[in-house]
Amino acid sequence: MTMASTEDILKIMLKRDRFTEWLGLQIDEYKRGYCKLHFHVNENMLNGFEIVHGGVLFAASDSAFAFACNSHGNITLALDASMSFTRPAKSGELLTVEAIEVFLGNKIGIYDIRTTNENGELVALFKGTAYRTDKEVK
Amino acid sequence: MTMASTEDILKIMLKRDRFTEWLGLQIDEYKRGYCKLHFHVNENMLNGFEIVHGGVLFAASDSAFAFACNSHGNITLALDASMSFTRPAKSGELLTVEAIEVFLGNKIGIYDIRTTNENGELVALFKGTAYRTDKEVK
Amino acid sequence: MTMASTEDILKIMLKRDRFTEWLGLQIDEYKRGYCKLHFHVNENMLNGFEIVHGGVLFAASDSAFAFACNSHGNITLALDASMSFTRPAKSGELLTVEAIEVFLGNKIGIYDIRTTNENGELVALFKGTAYRTDKEVK
Amino acid sequence: MTMASTEDILKIMLKRDRFTEWLGLQIDEYKRGYCKLHFHVNENMLNGFEIVHGGVLFAASDSAFAFACNSHGNITLALDASMSFTRPAKSGELLTVEAIEVFLGNKIGIYDIRTTNENGELVALFKGTAYRTDKEVK
Repeated sequence: MTMASTEDILKIMLKRDRFTEWLGLQIDEYKRGYCKLHFHVNENMLNGFEIVHGGVLFAASDSAFAFACNSHGNITLALDASMSFTRPAKSGELLTVEAIEVFLGNKIGIYDIRTTNENGELVALFKGTAYRTDKEVK
Repeated sequence: MTMASTEDILKIMLKRDRFTEWLGLQIDEYKRGYCKLHFHVNENMLNGFEIVHGGVLFAASDSAFAFACNSHGNITLALDASMSFTRPAKSGELLTVEAIEVFLGNKIGIYDIRTTNENGELVALFKGTAYRTDKEVK
Repeated sequence: MTMASTEDILKIMLKRDRFTEWLGLQIDEYKRGYCKLHFHVNENMLNGFEIVHGGVLFAASDSAFAFACNSHGNITLALDASMSFTRPAKSGELLTVEAIEVFLGNKIGIYDIRTTNENGELVALFKGTAYRTDKEVK
Repeated sequence: MTMASTEDILKIMLKRDRFTEWLGLQIDEYKRGYCKLHFHVNENMLNGFEIVHGGVLFAASDSAFAFACNSHGNITLALDASMSFTRPAKSGELLTVEAIEVFLGNKIGIYDIRTTNENGELVALFKGTAYRTDKEVK
């Protein structure tokens, strides 16, 4: 068995990921256990208080989490995520999302995902736990 | 001061909530400390594994959470949310999201939000903590 | 194979659980997927603000969680827990802890654990995710 | 008003913290927004599987969290904590707990607390959100 390269894994995951496409997520860096991406907040992403909807922030983090935890070649499923919101973001802002692997066990991986604005200020903090299946990403 | 009715609060919150509109969330019931809504999973909401993106599930829960915690008339901000994913959902499925108030203090409110499918099976579980400001929703 | 009865499982788990003993946890009710217990806050459980230490509240919830999720006979390990603190408790108070199974899958179980005081007020809310191994409790 | 020094704050907090004393927590380093401590797992801290009880791990993290978030001189209360368990620890092990401030706002602080064993392996990961009151620690 040859394990898929991270390049192939990302291609497979992005190919059909319609929601990541809708969010306009752009991958900046991708390697085993790591993913960095960015996107621009647009009008369609706002809630009733005219700031970015928490679901959009979560979704961008969740995508970075999924890319990072599937990077080892096993299909890996999100079990739990804890999200803290620290600072609002408005339409037009550029947000960067960085997923770092904190722990990788046989069955479980834990990831820390931080969303920052152009001033480097923390917008949201996401801690995710994933379950690693035996199936290969392909 | 007359506190806004829940009807007015919902109208104000929905008026400008573009992302809730994009998700197609339909409010079924709304009262102080409670919100029930539903939506249909569509193709644009899928991730690379052809199941609904975790961000969409979170977003629908987060909207129900926001409606429920703002229902008392104070502008209320999400601080923390913990999300557990228990069952995948596919395109076409009808999902129901119910937000229940577990605790309401002077500054803090805690909400339990459950997403279920048409068979009544649990798809996701969200626990949210919100901070109640002194400002009125208007 | 005969699966152990809940009575046997509880006996096995309590036999060596020194920390549960130190906490003085008393089991009120125990069945598949459910555990209710109580304890009294004592002086040794207080923090520097003279209220019960968050670690004690967590520990009591975590024990109820462990009893509930091991009740099916498989050794089950806590993966994630999310804890919200809603009301302080003082020395001498009687606290009741109730663990309810929210979801039971092949590999994963999710539990909701509530701690209440003698007035029925919520003191803490714990959501726990557990991983079910193939090994039997014995 | 002179804000209390971190030395004074720690002294005040430890003076009456009976549970931290029971746990045998030893402070290694303490400054604004930061706390590092260690302790030895003993027999009384074990659960029924003869590994350290999750409540003990949580409690040590929660103490480090409390010291770190009160270090700025305001009385600060834990609202939410998310705990992930990654590796068991046994009686006799030396565990190190490090609390780092991730975010400090007017009302809210967020902290990342990691527990590691003597080999530097991650035993538990705690993310805590605290509410900063206007009252001074004294």
